[in-house]
Amino acid sequence: MQIYTRKQSMSKLLIVGTVAFDAIETPFGKTDKIVGGAATYISIAASQFNVESGIVSVVGGDFPKDFLKQLNEKNIDTSGIEIIEDGKTFFWSGKYHNDLNVRDTLATDLNVLADFDPKVPEKFQNTDFLMLGNLHPSVQMAVIKQLPNRPKLVVLDTMNFWMDNTWDELMEVVAKVDVITINDEEARQMSGEYSLVKAANKIHKMGPRYVVIKKGEHGALLFENGNAFFAPALPLEEVFDPTGAGDTFAGGFIGHIANTKDISFENMKKAVISGSNLASFCVEKLGTERMINLTKKEMMNRLIEFKKLTQFDIELS
Amino acid sequence: MQIYTRKQSMSKLLIVGTVAFDAIETPFGKTDKIVGGAATYISIAASQFNVESGIVSVVGGDFPKDFLKQLNEKNIDTSGIEIIEDGKTFFWSGKYHNDLNVRDTLATDLNVLADFDPKVPEKFQNTDFLMLGNLHPSVQMAVIKQLPNRPKLVVLDTMNFWMDNTWDELMEVVAKVDVITINDEEARQMSGEYSLVKAANKIHKMGPRYVVIKKGEHGALLFENGNAFFAPALPLEEVFDPTGAGDTFAGGFIGHIANTKDISFENMKKAVISGSNLASFCVEKLGTERMINLTKKEMMNRLIEFKKLTQFDIELS
Repeated sequence: MQIYTRKQSMSKLLIVGTVAFDAIETPFGKTDKIVGGAATYISIAASQFNVESGIVSVVGGDFPKDFLKQLNEKNIDTSGIEIIEDGKTFFWSGKYHNDLNVRDTLATDLNVLADFDPKVPEKFQNTDFLMLGNLHPSVQMAVIKQLPNRPKLVVLDTMNFWMDNTWDELMEVVAKVDVITINDEEARQMSGEYSLVKAANKIHKMGPRYVVIKKGEHGALLFENGNAFFAPALPLEEVFDPTGAGDTFAGGFIGHIANTKDISFENMKKAVISGSNLASFCVEKLGTERMINLTKKEMMNRLIEFKKLTQFDIELS
Repeated sequence: MQIYTRKQSMSKLLIVGTVAFDAIETPFGKTDKIVGGAATYISIAASQFNVESGIVSVVGGDFPKDFLKQLNEKNIDTSGIEIIEDGKTFFWSGKYHNDLNVRDTLATDLNVLADFDPKVPEKFQNTDFLMLGNLHPSVQMAVIKQLPNRPKLVVLDTMNFWMDNTWDELMEVVAKVDVITINDEEARQMSGEYSLVKAANKIHKMGPRYVVIKKGEHGALLFENGNAFFAPALPLEEVFDPTGAGDTFAGGFIGHIANTKDISFENMKKAVISGSNLASFCVEKLGTERMINLTKKEMMNRLIEFKKLTQFDIELS
């Protein structure tokens, strides 16, 4: 049972995406099946903010109920996570190369995800914000269609796999969102342009007013027609596991927006800093471990580091 | 003949490096022999600032005197450029791949550079600042030894070639400088560390108090023991030719420092922004063309773009 202490002013944030098992191998360690998935990382990151979030997803009977309880304790509603008792949870396994920038997918077992028919719980049908985590674009579209009113902001995360295999469905959903977050190679693939400025301009024309290009250890770029903002990644002594960093970035981004309810470009700048900030924690340990235990104080302290890292005074003499 | 209107307050900046011919091939165009070289790019970039600079280098009789005159018109003293009338100027030829991040060297004809014996003109022996452009470390060391007093700041640029072939000589000169500028791969090679934070820490121990790691289109990082600052590269619609961008960065860096005479970490931040700013122009045309014609107004306007690109307000609530 979940107890909500929702303030009048608290935004609702609906998150659609996978809740999954991952098995990860990095040069620094190897996990057995651990909990992962886009919606997992997004929701945990967003829980750092004063928002009422809910997940729409599907898991099998093998998924640990305790983990759902952990999410509930972070004020994340899991009533939209369908549990198919005689099914198995989506499983992804990957191995990172030495520099952590390249990974091989070792296994992708769709399991219950293969027939996923998303259902938005009634209490989130009037959600203020919608975060569409990386998933089949027709699932993302099905969620958009279930909402009677358009949310204040719809953010879409996707990847090259959907560009390769479901281009038309992807374009339909891309046309309906305000913000798209993709990595640099995906932006180039999607636009056919090498220059990220030109790529963003083309992607704007496909629908999204805001284009966020994630560059991993090289930071992230935010584009709005003619405006650009750059959030660096924090230079870290150790990166243990990049899994979930992009989803955590998205969660920090939408979490900040939902908390402040301000969708101006000025505030989007802070949202990408917030996303980059949270992603910098995510990679410090394997899986969700670091994010589950992250405190608000740690988050705020690292924001100060981001300020030091980027802010300068300049005289225009 | 050069006429100097040196103000009492104007810093002297001595620049050591190649003055050369380049032949460049990019996906966007191809040049015949054009003027290039580290000292050329550095000095032109630094000429945007209120400094009295002089070059120490060597060219052959084939080098265009007109180009030296162009430098003189930018208040760059070329009396330290030895002209060996019966010799040929250093020649480098390279071809960039489609993404401009990788290049193949097609030719490196040392010519007069093979026996280069640098001589610091008397009027620069009391230089305030010393910029050691990418060259054989024993040439860089010979210049340091000719200066009776240590400059306020000595900046060294180098590359993997010297790490591979002249490690011991390189370490000797690295131990004597305040700032080193190298790219990310070179920082990793030099330190044996993949993490740039760890790499910088190791390089600090080799001598330089400040470590600047250039990441090309991904910007530049400045490290001082425990402090870090990041300057992005400006996202550009078109990049035509990266040749000289690293040297131009170094010239913008030392030009700002020499102009302000302030070697604090706070001012170094502005110096890396200044370097990144000037490098963003350099790549817009082939060779030195863009830099030769760059106005101070264009430079200042683009600084505003850098500010927009990086500055944000954050509430630490």
